[in-house]
Amino acid sequence: MSDAIATKTLAPGSLQRSIRRCAPGGTECASDAVSIEEPLEIRLVHGAGQKRAEQSIAITMRTPGHDEELAMGFLAGEGIIRSAQDVSRIGHCGPPSPDKGLVNVLRVELDSQVQVDLESLKRHFYTSSSCGVCGKASLDAIAFQVPERPEHNERTGSGFAIHAGDLRKLPAQLLARQDEFTRTGGLHASASFDGSGRIARIREDVGRHNALDKLVGAHFREGELVGFGILLSGRASFELIQKAAMAGARLVAAIGAPSSLAVELAEQQGITLVGFLKRGSFNLYCHGHRVLEA
Amino acid sequence: MSDAIATKTLAPGSLQRSIRRCAPGGTECASDAVSIEEPLEIRLVHGAGQKRAEQSIAITMRTPGHDEELAMGFLAGEGIIRSAQDVSRIGHCGPPSPDKGLVNVLRVELDSQVQVDLESLKRHFYTSSSCGVCGKASLDAIAFQVPERPEHNERTGSGFAIHAGDLRKLPAQLLARQDEFTRTGGLHASASFDGSGRIARIREDVGRHNALDKLVGAHFREGELVGFGILLSGRASFELIQKAAMAGARLVAAIGAPSSLAVELAEQQGITLVGFLKRGSFNLYCHGHRVLEA
Repeated sequence: MSDAIATKTLAPGSLQRSIRRCAPGGTECASDAVSIEEPLEIRLVHGAGQKRAEQSIAITMRTPGHDEELAMGFLAGEGIIRSAQDVSRIGHCGPPSPDKGLVNVLRVELDSQVQVDLESLKRHFYTSSSCGVCGKASLDAIAFQVPERPEHNERTGSGFAIHAGDLRKLPAQLLARQDEFTRTGGLHASASFDGSGRIARIREDVGRHNALDKLVGAHFREGELVGFGILLSGRASFELIQKAAMAGARLVAAIGAPSSLAVELAEQQGITLVGFLKRGSFNLYCHGHRVLEA
Repeated sequence: MSDAIATKTLAPGSLQRSIRRCAPGGTECASDAVSIEEPLEIRLVHGAGQKRAEQSIAITMRTPGHDEELAMGFLAGEGIIRSAQDVSRIGHCGPPSPDKGLVNVLRVELDSQVQVDLESLKRHFYTSSSCGVCGKASLDAIAFQVPERPEHNERTGSGFAIHAGDLRKLPAQLLARQDEFTRTGGLHASASFDGSGRIARIREDVGRHNALDKLVGAHFREGELVGFGILLSGRASFELIQKAAMAGARLVAAIGAPSSLAVELAEQQGITLVGFLKRGSFNLYCHGHRVLEA
């Protein structure tokens, strides 16, 4: 194998590379689809009049594609925007990189009325508080303020529920529609679904938080509810439950394991948490009343 | 199932929760081991004389345990420390959280001679540069300056190599020693190994970057080389290859898929990259000369 590897763009999301495949029966030269990972810088234009300013707020390693949705989902998850109307303009900026022809900077211009608290955002990435998480219960210190939404109020009787049988069919539906994963084996997916187990939207990315941001951003941009259920192709972490809570999800189903803090946050937020959803089985960690058994 | 869930600490790394397990044959109440995820704040004390200051530099969601190694590996990966002697003191600080009895703040005191460039660290989490990744090749813009180390220099003839057969045995060795994963199914692992395929150290965490930081920190603290090979239980991303490069690894073997930028960085850094190492097979992405076939 030459170390000078040929690359060819296959489709957005993956590219083809020449590799050496070593199996017990022998070695062969082959071609392998690799998930694309590239940085995306998100820049925010905010404020009014003379105080209007542009600022770089995050760099994430993502799979190119659905970049605008990624940024909108990220901003919604951080509580910076509350509706699609908060964004007056969104788009890539700057010249494409000379080597790959990709633009890796996205500029989001907020409506001048939107108040931005960059301090709360900063907290995630780089904190200079005098106290930090020290001496506080961790959940309180780092959990977001989830906005109260009408659809959250189960006293209105609009409670979400799904039959266990419909839940069990979700992984096969996801896999059937998850193109990039089949090709590369290297992408995470997030999908939204309704109470009859119908998948509404799917988004994929090398980063699982990006896949969920893209999904939430896609719904957000169309002014749709995210749906009451979110399916995760991998594990459920605190951060993913937090994003799901900000998006208004009532049930999160993960094909992998949840972490302890994911369970705690789901419990605190009234979200039904399903884990290890595979081979026709699943575990219910909390708020199991939304899963109906025949 | 009651939503008031009983929790009991099982072992560092996981706790036991009461769940409802729904299988095709029926539903039962059960107990499930869940990987612990908790925030860790890393605080740095640096500078000399009147300019000595304490600053919070990162919050990461980690599985408690090996926190000092995590911090040392993180700082080594960021290029802030170059040897264990750069750290004059390290330990948890602050009172334990009232609910869990965990201390989630770690203070690292640097030797007063160590110069810290917090700007380069900041760049990862929160950037305010006027240009960012725009208009530059992404690798150059975000890749670290990997220090030249004597053991890196293959002209000295100390080249690392491993037989394909020894490489194939690594996943089974990892699984046999990866206690928490077996129990929870929810942890990533990183391991170091030598040219005969012997695993030296293993570290686990809910976050794959944390597992690698802990591994690197463990070697770093003992003043050992990391070894020339690093085994990853999941996928290989740009960030993980970057950390491996900073630690001096010559070969990275991932049980999952690599991303495009992981391949590019490995190629640029002269690191042999192996992916999909499972069921006796693997793919070689670049610098394949270090894998010897019988």
